[in-house]
Amino acid sequence: MLIDSIRHQLRSIVGEAYFKDDPEALVSYSYDATPMHQSLPDGVIYPADTAQVAAILRIANEHRIPVIGRGAGTNLSAGTVPVAGGLVMVMNRMNRLIEIDRDNLTATFQPGLNTKQFHQAVEQLGYFYPPDPSSMVISTMGGNIMECAGGLRGLKYGTTKDYVIGLEAVLPSGEIIRTGGKLYKDVAGYDLTKLLVGSEGTLAIITEATVKLLTAPTYKKTMLAMYKDIYAAARTVSSIIGQHRITPSTLEFIDNPTLRVVEDFNKIGLPLDMEAILLIEQDGSDEATIDADIEKIRHICLEEGAAEVQLARSAEEAEKLMKARRSALSTLARISPTTILEDATVPRSKIAEMVIAINDIAKKYNVNICTFGHAGDGNLHPTCTTDARNPEEIHRVEQAFEEIFEKAIGLGGTITGEHGVGAVKAPYLEWKVGAAGIELMKAIKHAFDPNQIMNPGKIFAKPSRKRVVIQH
Amino acid sequence: MLIDSIRHQLRSIVGEAYFKDDPEALVSYSYDATPMHQSLPDGVIYPADTAQVAAILRIANEHRIPVIGRGAGTNLSAGTVPVAGGLVMVMNRMNRLIEIDRDNLTATFQPGLNTKQFHQAVEQLGYFYPPDPSSMVISTMGGNIMECAGGLRGLKYGTTKDYVIGLEAVLPSGEIIRTGGKLYKDVAGYDLTKLLVGSEGTLAIITEATVKLLTAPTYKKTMLAMYKDIYAAARTVSSIIGQHRITPSTLEFIDNPTLRVVEDFNKIGLPLDMEAILLIEQDGSDEATIDADIEKIRHICLEEGAAEVQLARSAEEAEKLMKARRSALSTLARISPTTILEDATVPRSKIAEMVIAINDIAKKYNVNICTFGHAGDGNLHPTCTTDARNPEEIHRVEQAFEEIFEKAIGLGGTITGEHGVGAVKAPYLEWKVGAAGIELMKAIKHAFDPNQIMNPGKIFAKPSRKRVVIQH
Repeated sequence: MLIDSIRHQLRSIVGEAYFKDDPEALVSYSYDATPMHQSLPDGVIYPADTAQVAAILRIANEHRIPVIGRGAGTNLSAGTVPVAGGLVMVMNRMNRLIEIDRDNLTATFQPGLNTKQFHQAVEQLGYFYPPDPSSMVISTMGGNIMECAGGLRGLKYGTTKDYVIGLEAVLPSGEIIRTGGKLYKDVAGYDLTKLLVGSEGTLAIITEATVKLLTAPTYKKTMLAMYKDIYAAARTVSSIIGQHRITPSTLEFIDNPTLRVVEDFNKIGLPLDMEAILLIEQDGSDEATIDADIEKIRHICLEEGAAEVQLARSAEEAEKLMKARRSALSTLARISPTTILEDATVPRSKIAEMVIAINDIAKKYNVNICTFGHAGDGNLHPTCTTDARNPEEIHRVEQAFEEIFEKAIGLGGTITGEHGVGAVKAPYLEWKVGAAGIELMKAIKHAFDPNQIMNPGKIFAKPSRKRVVIQH
Repeated sequence: MLIDSIRHQLRSIVGEAYFKDDPEALVSYSYDATPMHQSLPDGVIYPADTAQVAAILRIANEHRIPVIGRGAGTNLSAGTVPVAGGLVMVMNRMNRLIEIDRDNLTATFQPGLNTKQFHQAVEQLGYFYPPDPSSMVISTMGGNIMECAGGLRGLKYGTTKDYVIGLEAVLPSGEIIRTGGKLYKDVAGYDLTKLLVGSEGTLAIITEATVKLLTAPTYKKTMLAMYKDIYAAARTVSSIIGQHRITPSTLEFIDNPTLRVVEDFNKIGLPLDMEAILLIEQDGSDEATIDADIEKIRHICLEEGAAEVQLARSAEEAEKLMKARRSALSTLARISPTTILEDATVPRSKIAEMVIAINDIAKKYNVNICTFGHAGDGNLHPTCTTDARNPEEIHRVEQAFEEIFEKAIGLGGTITGEHGVGAVKAPYLEWKVGAAGIELMKAIKHAFDPNQIMNPGKIFAKPSRKRVVIQH
């Protein structure tokens, strides 16, 4: 609970309507897209501009009140759950697309801007911003930046980190910094821009960002390769990129259980008798090159044992396939009370081995795990359909995921490819970065946030307020 | 001077032959490629492996001895000059190319590996590592990483930062950390990899690196556009990339004074009656697309007022042109006792304005400044031919560069695009990042290096040991 004088100060910064601490507001911001994590904040605040963000942070810093920056809350690591209470700072009033600079191929915007709206604005002018998290219809660009969002085009085009070149950010002290700029090269001191991208709200609140844009590819082709043997599908991934040196813009893996629920929801004729499919897209400016790539990929798929390969006959059909893939999480969420999606990531050459391991581990712990994901990146999403009301099963699920993380690390991989550490994976971070890495990261955190007010309880493992579980 | 017991300890780590403190060794490592900066170290040490690096750092940390990591010393910011004495740690024994992983499209190597040798090893297998600093025949990959080297292909392919995905590094405490891996996506905690790239040896010593590789482009075309009007050349840059949305792999600007010395040295028939030339290259896998791009670029150049456009008739001719461009610094260095090369960088759309400003400033201070550089990136290299023996002239040169940095910042640019801050630009860093930015960077430095032993006197301005100037 915030004391009256602080509530008064906060209201005087943002105006009466933009600070809330009624029970409805507190409950609304007590959870995000992550299942089984909930904790009430002490207040919700909606700043209108950078000056307000700075004023709020100064007060929070003085009184040691936790501040949890939040966009649309679509993250899957409990990254915006206020596990230590405090103020949820909702950035949705700061949602302006400030500029698309055609000479410099950059766009500048506020963090609350919706990702899909940004894509559309950019694409209307013939430009291209590749990062396309599956949540993009709802998520915000600020959230994408704080989590370093990936998506289906990461293989060829990289992730959010590869595009952010300038930031305005407010430190917990209320000081405003500007990093980078409309610059493709800048080595003036340490790279604070890339450090802030993916920092999960634990270092600063970003209030403006500048990203690089690309010229939109003018042509693309989409195909489905279907497999009776799940490991043949996984092997195909290495073969296309490693041995044959083709980098498709999208190379997605979907196993049979995922296929079934996606088909059930989308009704687009996915082959239910297959053990796995690969959804492959190539894009670019030259039709002949892309057609040739797709033809080569078709051959490779068949060589590696695909039962069938189908080319999308139209842009609409291709779009339907991509949309179906993007719906995987939401459709899986419909078939069970609780759906836990992970993003263990391995070197691409280890995809087949990882798929085998996931299936073995699921069997060992008698839990139901579907797997889909960005196979070209080595970024898989093993997804467990379970029921949070069954603590015994949940315990087995936790053991299974723990073993999946361990396996990923063992294969030279990581505990999270694109979802972030948040509260969910904090206990496992040391497996990846070591004790010295954790100490270093804590010291960096301290450099930005000596009073530990920025999104406490995230990234670094520590005992947190007991979680309240809500069913959906 | 190191006391006997420490010298003894250091020798017992690396062996008698690999610690030196005779006058010849000390003088050899008292300077780098930066003119007018020199300072003697107290010793020079050549570790053979990571364990030796760790053992050396532990001793240095305990006794507060500065450690200056060094590759080939080709940097231009006095980044490897031991301004506070201490130990120069030369990495050239750790020069092994450990692995080229074809399945994962990565290469792993030790920091002392020569850049050109690495390029050749990669290219022999049909792969491509884009960063190509002009110093690459001499420079090391470790030096490239510590300075975040750019080069002629940065416009289309980015810089070193865009390729490094994993590091092994030794902290001043002697602890060894591993960041990233053979992973295209990894958001497990703060991005220590990108923070270390470009950190100029002030945070840690890297002992191993993993970089992404690309498939080599199979076709390229090179052209020269020649201008009687220097500003028409600068305008062409914006027009090609901004208005016509073509991103060439190389887009270099060379003004007449640079042209004259480059031609004098290379004798390849550059047009001495032109005020400026653009050297343009496009590459890729599809001949028709590249031919079409080059044809469009030719039109744009003529439209913007090029007096003449010439296509390279052969790969040899193209290679000669690129080699001539890369020789700009070394040829300019031949015509005057002292050559100071800078790398102020602006948003690409401001190139014409920046070229005008540089020429005006040179006139104002009556100094001789030639300008060439990576125009497509907005990364210019105004280069002053002067004489360090003339303090009055040197003072005017310093004033001129100060005004150039100020102008670059005013245009939304930065004080350094690819050479680093080092000792040379430390006094100007605050102009770019602000007082709050400096404080934050100092706190990050402290997080890694609480005893301030790692390459002290670099990045952050402070009174340094008086410099001894050597003529060349």
